[in-house]
Amino acid sequence: MLENVKQIAEKNRALLEEYLRLESVSAQGRQMIETAEMVARIIEDKGGQAEILHLADTEAPPVVYGEFLAGPGGNAEKTLLFYNHYDVQPEDPIDEWETDPFVPTERDGKLYCRGVSDNKANFIARINAIEYWSEQAGGLPCNVKFLLEGEEEIGSPHINAYLAQYAEKFAADACIWESGGKDAAERIELSCGVKGIAYFDLAVRTAATDIHSSNAAVIDNAAWRLTQALASMRNADNEILIDGFYDLMIEPTDLEYDVLAKMPFDRQVLRDTYGVKGPFITDNLPYSEKEALIFYPTLTISGLLSGYGGSGAKTVLPAQAKAKLDVRLVPGYSPEAVEQLLRQHLDKHGFKDVELTRLAGVMPFRTDLSSSFIEVVTRAAQKIYGGESVVVMPNSAGTGPMYSFGQYLNVPVVGSGTEYYNSAPHAPNEHIRLTDYYQGIEHMIHLLADFGQ
Amino acid sequence: MLENVKQIAEKNRALLEEYLRLESVSAQGRQMIETAEMVARIIEDKGGQAEILHLADTEAPPVVYGEFLAGPGGNAEKTLLFYNHYDVQPEDPIDEWETDPFVPTERDGKLYCRGVSDNKANFIARINAIEYWSEQAGGLPCNVKFLLEGEEEIGSPHINAYLAQYAEKFAADACIWESGGKDAAERIELSCGVKGIAYFDLAVRTAATDIHSSNAAVIDNAAWRLTQALASMRNADNEILIDGFYDLMIEPTDLEYDVLAKMPFDRQVLRDTYGVKGPFITDNLPYSEKEALIFYPTLTISGLLSGYGGSGAKTVLPAQAKAKLDVRLVPGYSPEAVEQLLRQHLDKHGFKDVELTRLAGVMPFRTDLSSSFIEVVTRAAQKIYGGESVVVMPNSAGTGPMYSFGQYLNVPVVGSGTEYYNSAPHAPNEHIRLTDYYQGIEHMIHLLADFGQ
Repeated sequence: MLENVKQIAEKNRALLEEYLRLESVSAQGRQMIETAEMVARIIEDKGGQAEILHLADTEAPPVVYGEFLAGPGGNAEKTLLFYNHYDVQPEDPIDEWETDPFVPTERDGKLYCRGVSDNKANFIARINAIEYWSEQAGGLPCNVKFLLEGEEEIGSPHINAYLAQYAEKFAADACIWESGGKDAAERIELSCGVKGIAYFDLAVRTAATDIHSSNAAVIDNAAWRLTQALASMRNADNEILIDGFYDLMIEPTDLEYDVLAKMPFDRQVLRDTYGVKGPFITDNLPYSEKEALIFYPTLTISGLLSGYGGSGAKTVLPAQAKAKLDVRLVPGYSPEAVEQLLRQHLDKHGFKDVELTRLAGVMPFRTDLSSSFIEVVTRAAQKIYGGESVVVMPNSAGTGPMYSFGQYLNVPVVGSGTEYYNSAPHAPNEHIRLTDYYQGIEHMIHLLADFGQ
Repeated sequence: MLENVKQIAEKNRALLEEYLRLESVSAQGRQMIETAEMVARIIEDKGGQAEILHLADTEAPPVVYGEFLAGPGGNAEKTLLFYNHYDVQPEDPIDEWETDPFVPTERDGKLYCRGVSDNKANFIARINAIEYWSEQAGGLPCNVKFLLEGEEEIGSPHINAYLAQYAEKFAADACIWESGGKDAAERIELSCGVKGIAYFDLAVRTAATDIHSSNAAVIDNAAWRLTQALASMRNADNEILIDGFYDLMIEPTDLEYDVLAKMPFDRQVLRDTYGVKGPFITDNLPYSEKEALIFYPTLTISGLLSGYGGSGAKTVLPAQAKAKLDVRLVPGYSPEAVEQLLRQHLDKHGFKDVELTRLAGVMPFRTDLSSSFIEVVTRAAQKIYGGESVVVMPNSAGTGPMYSFGQYLNVPVVGSGTEYYNSAPHAPNEHIRLTDYYQGIEHMIHLLADFGQ
């Protein structure tokens, strides 16, 4: 390790803990302004310029802009943008926390607090890396900008509007994404993209009221309608049957397949992690689990609700049924296109009565894998984690607002962070390992140097 | 109307209201013993013998036995059994009652109270008819027995055991069932049977915990498994696809088809009553709505529950899914046979992981339609309601514990009562019309005379 990384990290430990204590739960609008103000203060205290940005005509929490200029020995022509968020998930279920969710607590080399892994420690890690270079004679090797938003945990509903309005301010050459970390084999994962999402409510009503089930010989019911509508969308081999659905997919490039081929995939670890009981849905499909996770769209029933759900028997013919449908998107798909295909499918199969409402839509994004920035981030990581332990992913299986950064700023984006497989983001006892935190700082130190060259 | 029917009814009105005030909610075990004791007291006060029967080794509410002997002018060789129940449904939702659910209230010729239509007024109507004959010189035209149970509203779990233990005590030549009433065209319906029921929980678990839906490309989810399992049981024309399911059905006799042919069926009334939006499920089936309602089994999803059911989006891959399945049975079916077919179907179609648990089972029952008792009940009804307004049904579309009476007592069973289409049993503002009540008493008066001949 660089000799003074841990020293800087410990010097700024109180700052990290002060930041963690702020209960910036975006879903509940708690301490959002105080937290944004603290972010701006940290940036200014460390020698940067900060600005708290607002959108006209909304109640949206502010975005914090930060800027640090390259030092006299640095490259003033190159600018790296860090995307982070200062909001956190709600702390429920609070009973399952071993210590107070908003009191940072160190145990066995781990730091526990809501938001520490997602994503507050990553912001402070970036700040530590900047401080490392500020203390060197040459100063920062490049310009650095920050964008910290306060709505990532509720789906970033205003990130597009912020980027559209402030595109010039955030102009940069490349972007480090907010998250990243170590998998169960202790390999650091650097993801170059995200899947998108289209999320829908399906609802069907077959009668004005619930009806005694003795009428079932004649009167249809909403639970059957919805079951039949959903079943029409997927066959026994788990292929999606929506007409034209797979046609939207842009065939991955040879380079993307090469990168995929180098990605490890441990079937048994995934099965054990979640206690998966049945076969994988890819077992009868003509592509591998890795291909499915990275390159293929999904169609998930995330919720079913109709009629009676309590214990025992209730003889009811449900008048209403609802489902939640979660569709993950890869390049070529848009939430709008998926909505149109779903509507056409339902109509064509006799389910005009099934209402479809889109609740959320995020575009997929994948950085051009030939971008030299990926090489820069990877090389810096290999210095810290070792060559065998750095995994580049064309994109993650999850979703984030990365597309907006590509669209408005035209930057390559790679994620890197200080989490590990057991960090429990969004769950009780969220934590990071301090050794991962120090490594994350060091990765950013090397990255700034390599990027500035 | 017979001249003193209304006079007797009004004389016993206070008795009816006292009986109605007792909150004999079997689901909640409220005032069950007091109510059984009141039933016994009423029988004895009116000149009968009563006994409160218990089952050894259970906490089951008692069954009340009652007996009135034929008068000197009556036929002591013939015994009519009245089956009634003294328990009622819970009064929820209490806010929707216009008056206190357990305070009998007369408005516009209607008597409102929980349990008045189902089934307390019918018991007192029978008592009034007995009192009518007791005041005549010849006394009762036949012997009368009563069986009042306290668990009808929770599925009569102990009626079999009571009938098995006390079969000799309840021996009779025929049975009048607890319920019956007027349809939307003001025709009195006399039903000679019931459908049975087999009610199941279906449950599937695909993983130890709910999983982030980004894993959906590889890991299956319980909501999909259950949707596919259910969809395999019914096709787009709403035919049940369970192997051998329709083979169990005993083809109705010519006589049963003749009786069915005389039954009215008003498609539009049924549609309007419940605000039915789509086609009837029989529209593409090779049998009529009437045949379906009376002669065919059903397969109903009464509940679906999996994953997230709240507002907005939750990106979850549900680990568990549950459904309630309500199967109505006609002669030839038993709950056990249906359970076996369902299990075989699930296994054969690759759904061994879907657990099937039977929650309730009631056998179907249909009185032999050539029984002279049906003619006796019908003739008595025609005197009161007019020939065109009496409808005999081979069985109702609903379910009740009638099979046990056929099995242990070997009696023909016909239902008759004082309800009407808008009585709202099991619902707020349950009521009867007093004119229907007087007619119901008169029907029983004529029936006792005709039966005793």
